[in-house]
Amino acid sequence: MILTSYHQQPQALRQAARSGRFTQPTAGHAPGYLQANLMIVPQAQAFDFLLFCQRNPKACPLIEVLEPGATAPACASGASIATDIPGYRVYRDGEFSEERAEVAALWQPDFVSFLIGCSFSFEAALAQAGIALRHVVQGRNVAMYRTNLPCVPAGPFSGETVVSMRPIRSRDVAKVAEISGRFPLAHGAPLHVGNPQALGIADLSRPDYGDAVEILDDEVPVFWACGVTPQWVAQRSRLPLCITHAPGKMFVTDLMG
Amino acid sequence: MILTSYHQQPQALRQAARSGRFTQPTAGHAPGYLQANLMIVPQAQAFDFLLFCQRNPKACPLIEVLEPGATAPACASGASIATDIPGYRVYRDGEFSEERAEVAALWQPDFVSFLIGCSFSFEAALAQAGIALRHVVQGRNVAMYRTNLPCVPAGPFSGETVVSMRPIRSRDVAKVAEISGRFPLAHGAPLHVGNPQALGIADLSRPDYGDAVEILDDEVPVFWACGVTPQWVAQRSRLPLCITHAPGKMFVTDLMG
Repeated sequence: MILTSYHQQPQALRQAARSGRFTQPTAGHAPGYLQANLMIVPQAQAFDFLLFCQRNPKACPLIEVLEPGATAPACASGASIATDIPGYRVYRDGEFSEERAEVAALWQPDFVSFLIGCSFSFEAALAQAGIALRHVVQGRNVAMYRTNLPCVPAGPFSGETVVSMRPIRSRDVAKVAEISGRFPLAHGAPLHVGNPQALGIADLSRPDYGDAVEILDDEVPVFWACGVTPQWVAQRSRLPLCITHAPGKMFVTDLMG
Repeated sequence: MILTSYHQQPQALRQAARSGRFTQPTAGHAPGYLQANLMIVPQAQAFDFLLFCQRNPKACPLIEVLEPGATAPACASGASIATDIPGYRVYRDGEFSEERAEVAALWQPDFVSFLIGCSFSFEAALAQAGIALRHVVQGRNVAMYRTNLPCVPAGPFSGETVVSMRPIRSRDVAKVAEISGRFPLAHGAPLHVGNPQALGIADLSRPDYGDAVEILDDEVPVFWACGVTPQWVAQRSRLPLCITHAPGKMFVTDLMG
């Protein structure tokens, strides 16, 4: 068995993903660089999806939108969006269809690629401020929940907001809100603090995505809009075709967060 | 001759514009409410124009984008985008075609309306902070200039940024940058301070749009991205059809700036 290689530089990581040598989640790699959720939709749905992002900027903060058919993002030198992510998922008619190592073989001239910010940037800033995040410490994926908070719809795209949850000590909640608020491309400040029932979340120990984490007595659950929202909305909307990154396997840009 | 009526409330102003009783510029009316530039393009160009706005957020801060064919914006109760502005301009193949009191008679089911923030919000905040703006004091339109700063292109949309200029006392420049930076929907912080030659502006006394104002010895010219940029870009790009508000005659929303 070969140990997974560690990549300091975005370009090296993307090259390793392209060649099939790197197939792991990207968290912790290329520290300091913005990582992005990927959403590819056909041009026929691209205006409506772009409008959906514009209307729901906390869940869908846009880092870059490529021209129809284009695979070379401006935010990543020499990269191809179709090969440089460690894993892709294809959805057809709103149902998960397959997981693939690349989507170059499926590529169509009408594919429009959206790169959407993810929370890794503010998590790094919280860590630097001395705020430990349980899922990072425990090496788990963050806990994510579907809520009853409707997104602002756009064309066929409608559905509820998906949130990520991090347990935060009461004395740190304001600081955490302030720090994460400085990263609008990483979902910004929390949507909601405490009281999961008000979001329609019945049981924090059973997340819809990711892994559950314990909440200690001096902690409050803090909720952020999550980049899984557009995937959930695309499923709910029974989009004929969309392609996303595989969970935790993000597109790593050359931009500093 | 009838004196122009003054409107404190957005809804009253929009009703008066709709009925043809109010045909004046909207500056100073409905204080505290966000006013917006209007840009209408056919659906065939809507994705590219939305992408242009996403790529050039300082010139084109989006307040709202309506669904294709829709005339009722969420940001203005009971309003119609086709009748409630005191004046409209129609451009065909990039050339000015006509000025009209309404565009309901031209309306097509594929028209997509974009409401783009304007600088009135930060001007009001500057006035409240005790910073007098010469064009407001003198009752003139702000001075605007085409620059050599290229916008990030999107599809057929390309061209240079248009800026507005306000003379600011040296001791107030930092405060003005700080205050206007709090209003991203009103173009945010300045693009450029001093040195108009670096923007390709040869002569500040000859603006491309609006009225020239004097710059005193203790003042610096301060430049902001301007909502006229999309109109200039649509002209440069020879768009088959687009409709905008007439200069200074904005769409007044129910949103507080």
